[in-house]
Amino acid sequence: MVHKFKVSTSGRCEMSDITKEVQGIVRENGLESGVCHVFVPHTTCALAVNENADPDVKADIQKKLCELVPEESGYKHAEGNSDAHIKAVLAGSSLSVFVEDGALLLGTWQGLYLCEYDGPRAREVWVKLLRG
Amino acid sequence: MVHKFKVSTSGRCEMSDITKEVQGIVRENGLESGVCHVFVPHTTCALAVNENADPDVKADIQKKLCELVPEESGYKHAEGNSDAHIKAVLAGSSLSVFVEDGALLLGTWQGLYLCEYDGPRAREVWVKLLRG
Amino acid sequence: MVHKFKVSTSGRCEMSDITKEVQGIVRENGLESGVCHVFVPHTTCALAVNENADPDVKADIQKKLCELVPEESGYKHAEGNSDAHIKAVLAGSSLSVFVEDGALLLGTWQGLYLCEYDGPRAREVWVKLLRG
Repeated sequence: MVHKFKVSTSGRCEMSDITKEVQGIVRENGLESGVCHVFVPHTTCALAVNENADPDVKADIQKKLCELVPEESGYKHAEGNSDAHIKAVLAGSSLSVFVEDGALLLGTWQGLYLCEYDGPRAREVWVKLLRG
Repeated sequence: MVHKFKVSTSGRCEMSDITKEVQGIVRENGLESGVCHVFVPHTTCALAVNENADPDVKADIQKKLCELVPEESGYKHAEGNSDAHIKAVLAGSSLSVFVEDGALLLGTWQGLYLCEYDGPRAREVWVKLLRG
Repeated sequence: MVHKFKVSTSGRCEMSDITKEVQGIVRENGLESGVCHVFVPHTTCALAVNENADPDVKADIQKKLCELVPEESGYKHAEGNSDAHIKAVLAGSSLSVFVEDGALLLGTWQGLYLCEYDGPRAREVWVKLLRG
């Protein structure tokens, strides 16, 4: 079974914290121990694990990625969002996080993020839980 | 059990669509629901999920990666393919995709790609299916 | 169950080979066939699969990443390690490797690395084994 939830992003390039939503799915489904797989069915956003404390970190990550892969750079793709596809490949479409004692097992400073690169948009996040 | 198939790449830097091959392995093995793990046993190519429609997207992704990490850049490694190792680390060696109702569950615009950075070469792709 | 081990890094930016430690956990736990998931509970280091032979490759990878994402670049985050967070997002916090016949199944030239971007530090690596 695949669990799905929606995320509405509000800027072209932003990181939305999805830790609570994923944690909720783990708890509701009573998974005691296993692996929680997270996947985005999109090609212009991505998933990442990173700092959950100082919001400046999110801003720095997105700013540097936009400097490395700017919105305009002589791309061929006519839709004008090639930079978003490239950033999505660099950050990646999936995450695998451990579950123990019925909860996500993360480091103290870790949160799970949907990294939007072509928003604002309505995005979907898919979660699958494997016992083990 | 690990399922393996071969991909022959034709340029130094290209993205080869492997969606059909991976989908075939899922169907032949009768996996109804689970996770399909894909892995490349190489250090100068990678795997990525990205757009399956306009081929310009693939070209833009590879061109920008080659601008960020050029073939020549004062590298120490004598084989002359350090750029390929670096791109492989950035894109990643593995993918995890969900399986439901006996098929890969992908977004409308998503395909699975082997990203070649030091071709042309004969590459192997490994697939492992976990029920759940 | 989650298996944990420690890695002491000795420079700000380096790649530490953790293949032997992960392989040891696979053997000690008698996993014959399955997936070995590796995760770092940190936000300024990452995990990667790459070449295990010529150490120049590691040096080239880290040098280029530091050119792309320099330590100083007008970041907002006051701790002064935003570059490390960004590199961690690019390389990724998790790996999934196959296990067959009681051992990690890697390509001839592949090793598993903890990529330190804000060392020297005492790091933890988490491993979870799923049969299948």
